[in-house]
Amino acid sequence: MPSSFLLADLDLATPALVAVSGGRDSVMLLDLLMKAGHPSLIVCHLNHGLRGRESGQDAVFVRRLARHYGLPCEVEKVNVRQRAKDKRISLELAAREARYEFLQRVAHQHGVQRLYLAHHADDQAETILANLCRGSGIAGLRGMQVETSLNGMVLVRPLLSVRRVDIDAYVQAHRLPYREDSSNRSALHRRNRLRHEVLPLLNAVYARDVAPIVTRLGRLAARDEDYLKQQVLSFLEKEQVIEEDGSLNVTSQLRQLHPALLARVLHFWLGDQLGLPGVDAEVVEAASGMLAADGPAKVNLPGSRWLRRKARRLWVEGG
Amino acid sequence: MPSSFLLADLDLATPALVAVSGGRDSVMLLDLLMKAGHPSLIVCHLNHGLRGRESGQDAVFVRRLARHYGLPCEVEKVNVRQRAKDKRISLELAAREARYEFLQRVAHQHGVQRLYLAHHADDQAETILANLCRGSGIAGLRGMQVETSLNGMVLVRPLLSVRRVDIDAYVQAHRLPYREDSSNRSALHRRNRLRHEVLPLLNAVYARDVAPIVTRLGRLAARDEDYLKQQVLSFLEKEQVIEEDGSLNVTSQLRQLHPALLARVLHFWLGDQLGLPGVDAEVVEAASGMLAADGPAKVNLPGSRWLRRKARRLWVEGG
Repeated sequence: MPSSFLLADLDLATPALVAVSGGRDSVMLLDLLMKAGHPSLIVCHLNHGLRGRESGQDAVFVRRLARHYGLPCEVEKVNVRQRAKDKRISLELAAREARYEFLQRVAHQHGVQRLYLAHHADDQAETILANLCRGSGIAGLRGMQVETSLNGMVLVRPLLSVRRVDIDAYVQAHRLPYREDSSNRSALHRRNRLRHEVLPLLNAVYARDVAPIVTRLGRLAARDEDYLKQQVLSFLEKEQVIEEDGSLNVTSQLRQLHPALLARVLHFWLGDQLGLPGVDAEVVEAASGMLAADGPAKVNLPGSRWLRRKARRLWVEGG
Repeated sequence: MPSSFLLADLDLATPALVAVSGGRDSVMLLDLLMKAGHPSLIVCHLNHGLRGRESGQDAVFVRRLARHYGLPCEVEKVNVRQRAKDKRISLELAAREARYEFLQRVAHQHGVQRLYLAHHADDQAETILANLCRGSGIAGLRGMQVETSLNGMVLVRPLLSVRRVDIDAYVQAHRLPYREDSSNRSALHRRNRLRHEVLPLLNAVYARDVAPIVTRLGRLAARDEDYLKQQVLSFLEKEQVIEEDGSLNVTSQLRQLHPALLARVLHFWLGDQLGLPGVDAEVVEAASGMLAADGPAKVNLPGSRWLRRKARRLWVEGG
């Protein structure tokens, strides 16, 4: 395991949080960061309260682990089941939301912006396949990035190109204690069904390990998306079609744009600039239909909003 | 079934071949083309000799079908199993090669360039997933195109956006006779495992019909790839980096190209211009590594060929 390689590019001077579930992945990540000599880490653990006694034991384990390394530890407990029920969302989504809210709160309290996460290459393959099945378009095929920003935090995933089997080997070689996540074994969650049913089936059908093929596709998608994004931003800078009042000026330059760029201009306008939720490929396709001379003058958006067109202008109403 | 819609954009004035296996898909396609008043069709059927008596009965069925419509019919028999053994390729690939050779021969004999194929939307979803698992990059996610050219022939797939279930309904509603392809039922082939195992599993995990999501991804990939290809061609026209002797001139413009375009320039040079087989994302990645100042001076290619770099030039040797 080339641990020096994994962390070579990492900024070790900045204080950071590290999210530790207590499973092998985060146990290895924490160990690597400590071995690399990270001077200022705060261990964070959210008890999702989903597995009764076991969840509590995970929290105890993580507290002990932090003490072993001499690190501060922040633990919090939430009722994810209740949250999912209240917000009418899936358990997976509720857990994810609660986790990021908790981490943001801790980051704020400690005045820290940097957060290490233990996602690895097999997680990445699962994410890409999941995005594919959810209909995310090429951008979604990128999967997770090694470094991204989220609400003022910088999320860093040092293990993103490390395979699960190598994590197992590392944890074993260094005799690191870890907690077995029993929810990993159940096929209840979609993510777990991808891991335990879909990927093994694809491996069997193609008689090879499909995960690295999928993650390579992710890198190619990221590369292509980066170029397309550059083209879109340089068009927007040159043409200034997004007005100060948030409306879109339908110029002939905009209408003549290649569909690949036009779709991304619309996505940037609605999703990034106006911050509307649920702007997916379907919404963008409907919006781009409004630019045609005989296109509709109104198109519905998610969240009780709609798009209007009048003269050479598009704008959002409702919400 | 909006049959008029399906064929509205089709060129009905040009004589054409139509590939008919005798299964529902091709039976529906032939029926639609006849109902649309196609004036000059030649029914083509290749007996792959893979299913003994049944294969012979398929050929008899297709001959009768052609007679019913008053169309000429070309039938040929090949030994696909032997071909696969001789060429050490899969049965699927051997069948595909034999089929296109046969169709090209018939097209040549009749002085016809146009060929109708019965691939439908579920075939398309399977193709995209198969390409994904084989590691094809974004270009492979496009799947099949409604109209493509192959060795001077124009391949047209009028049913590419029609679902299998709609084909079943059409065939039933019009009481069209067809042959049940017994090889469809076996899970021997990869394609059949995708159809009968992988896609149903994905549908179950995501509790929805995944095929239209996958085919939409295909359309988005085709759209993006089209723009990227345009950018590559305009770069090549402007910079003329491919020399008449088939070598590549490594100019600073080429080296400064965004990786998304550079990879496609290399793919165009090696695959399209030099016609080398097996130029995949891996080969292109290795080749682009040679452009760096400290890159390798030699990189191996498939088929006992290799790439050489000297001064500011790349070229292929061996083969």
